[in-house]
Amino acid sequence: MKACEGHMGRVFVIRLEDGDVIPGCIERFAEENGVSVGHVILVGGIRDGEVVVGPRRSEERPPQPMLLPIDGAHEVVGVGVLAPSEDGKPLLHIHAALGRSGQTMSGCLRFGVATWIVGEVILYEILGVDVARVRDEQSGFLLLEPGAKPGCRFDC
Amino acid sequence: MKACEGHMGRVFVIRLEDGDVIPGCIERFAEENGVSVGHVILVGGIRDGEVVVGPRRSEERPPQPMLLPIDGAHEVVGVGVLAPSEDGKPLLHIHAALGRSGQTMSGCLRFGVATWIVGEVILYEILGVDVARVRDEQSGFLLLEPGAKPGCRFDC
Amino acid sequence: MKACEGHMGRVFVIRLEDGDVIPGCIERFAEENGVSVGHVILVGGIRDGEVVVGPRRSEERPPQPMLLPIDGAHEVVGVGVLAPSEDGKPLLHIHAALGRSGQTMSGCLRFGVATWIVGEVILYEILGVDVARVRDEQSGFLLLEPGAKPGCRFDC
Repeated sequence: MKACEGHMGRVFVIRLEDGDVIPGCIERFAEENGVSVGHVILVGGIRDGEVVVGPRRSEERPPQPMLLPIDGAHEVVGVGVLAPSEDGKPLLHIHAALGRSGQTMSGCLRFGVATWIVGEVILYEILGVDVARVRDEQSGFLLLEPGAKPGCRFDC
Repeated sequence: MKACEGHMGRVFVIRLEDGDVIPGCIERFAEENGVSVGHVILVGGIRDGEVVVGPRRSEERPPQPMLLPIDGAHEVVGVGVLAPSEDGKPLLHIHAALGRSGQTMSGCLRFGVATWIVGEVILYEILGVDVARVRDEQSGFLLLEPGAKPGCRFDC
Repeated sequence: MKACEGHMGRVFVIRLEDGDVIPGCIERFAEENGVSVGHVILVGGIRDGEVVVGPRRSEERPPQPMLLPIDGAHEVVGVGVLAPSEDGKPLLHIHAALGRSGQTMSGCLRFGVATWIVGEVILYEILGVDVARVRDEQSGFLLLEPGAKPGCRFDC
């Protein structure tokens, strides 16, 4: 467990429009508005794309992601963490539950999903923290890394 | 994509009691306390009501909602966006995943669901934004519309 | 419905590491950092433990929880409310949707689940509220109880 202390910054209320691709459109918005670290919530519709629904084998390293397609419009509720990747650009790690007809598929939206009619997003900016996504060799993941600036702690 | 910038206001910690109907009881609380725009999270139990589990046909306009009943007490995790509708009253668009016995139904709670024993809600007030829900003729939805006041941007 | 008004405090960005047990590790972090009341979001992987997937019989008091095991690594999206229990220690009530292979199990993580590779957590501190978890005799639950301090209201 590693952690970093900061405080709340700006709050953006965003409407995604039909066809807007998540997480790319939110990452671009964050970059254009100078939001480096943040928290995102998503409420709306999703109609296309693929979802990472876990690793094929839980113990394998690096894990091989399982991808499932989204067929038909789904109701979505999602939560994500925004932090800069190694090139300094904000990268959004967002997981969501996608429901249709009483079934639910949950997973990571990192390969892109398309907004169906509307997506309501709130983006909270978090200031005063020094975190980045750093590639982990064993897992291949870009792991969130609380940094060494004042106000940050390691190995809580 | 349309967006609006604001900042954090008050934070309300709320306990819903058995039978309290969501989203109505949260909307009334917001109105009574002068919360116009906000973000809601919901953690608790749900025992009754209906959930919108997607449109029957994804391409049809306006889409016809599919409704499924909630049978038995479900564990709920939900996230919503509060914004004033055309009459100025706060309207909560809340999506949730509802689990029971290892199955999950996800969707929109707009037709009302009843609290089972307890619902824990946090309501964040967002200040300085000019957003409203405006009826969209094609979809029939009340779409979140970031407005034209200073601090708001269109078509990001 | 009972409620209490407060305001935003510190924001912690936390990375859980493989094997970290939720909610215990977050509760300990909160206690060590003097966070009494808060809101938690969780995005990441879960590989072990048990989930409460509802009461066996919805009308029985106290309800008997149904528990299901987590088999294999799951994608998780979770939301929780932190408040002090009767001994003054912060207790996290967190619900989550756990997805694997297109299926989703949703429920309460109170009996403990283990992080798979990484869990990204944001912990928001909420200040100025007087809430506690108080045992309810009928349900056996530790119900969130907004208190009587100034700024708090009962029976909204």
